[in-house]
Amino acid sequence: MSVTLAPASTIEPADDPIYLTDFVREMLRQTRALDSYGQWDGKTVAAILAGYVLSKEQKRAIPTIGDPDEVTLARVKAFHNAIAVLIEKECGQMAVPFVQITHEGFGRALITVGKLVVMDRTLRDVHRFGFDSLSKMKTEADKHLAVALEIIGKYPDVAGM
Amino acid sequence: MSVTLAPASTIEPADDPIYLTDFVREMLRQTRALDSYGQWDGKTVAAILAGYVLSKEQKRAIPTIGDPDEVTLARVKAFHNAIAVLIEKECGQMAVPFVQITHEGFGRALITVGKLVVMDRTLRDVHRFGFDSLSKMKTEADKHLAVALEIIGKYPDVAGM
Repeated sequence: MSVTLAPASTIEPADDPIYLTDFVREMLRQTRALDSYGQWDGKTVAAILAGYVLSKEQKRAIPTIGDPDEVTLARVKAFHNAIAVLIEKECGQMAVPFVQITHEGFGRALITVGKLVVMDRTLRDVHRFGFDSLSKMKTEADKHLAVALEIIGKYPDVAGM
Repeated sequence: MSVTLAPASTIEPADDPIYLTDFVREMLRQTRALDSYGQWDGKTVAAILAGYVLSKEQKRAIPTIGDPDEVTLARVKAFHNAIAVLIEKECGQMAVPFVQITHEGFGRALITVGKLVVMDRTLRDVHRFGFDSLSKMKTEADKHLAVALEIIGKYPDVAGM
């Protein structure tokens, strides 16, 4: 009986302009911050960010039983930290991310600016956290950024509290 | 050499009117919800809530090294859940509590109503979470409730988002 292996991650090649975007640079910074033991020193950017890119087949191969592992949780936090940093850069005020994973891969991610909740999402199947490509990940982050800036623009006094 | 034992918790006697307040009733409800195995069945209200009342000496005897234990974390969550329930009762909108304990007993507790952060506090020395009496605990909760309702009154449209 042969086992079909999940295909390799389809992350963008090293010369893709995606690596020059603020978001991907911030993801790299956030991800490097997790590397306490310097295991990624000398590795390519694509290798460091590879864990965020998962094909549908790769996701399907990950069981969603029990709590997600530490590495996955750290990636979920890095993603929301990066969004918070971008919000902060755009609006000039501190944006604070909160990620709460409860049980079995469910949770909630919040970003607050002052007394304003600028992002609030339910997380599901955190075990399978990943995107089709870095570009898809950036699109998702850009969506949250746009909504956040819209809310801040609408209630600047609450964001400034 | 004799060891000075911490004095027993100075929780209010069973006929104290504090037990009739909405807050203490809600604390009882929240705390009972933690009792999956029915260990508190048949116990007095004072016995069930005793863990929230710690004298200064008792607090001092608790080491703040490492992560706080599960029971303490559950109490911190129950306290903030109860505040959220009171906010909800007063303003008629859903109040969502969020407690994040990071490392070594530090953390943050948030309550949101709509897109409004109505409570935001830093937690410290969570290992020693406790109050001089139920009355002191209620005073603390009432303070957060009052501030929350003030913010909601000021920004009803953000709370209603």
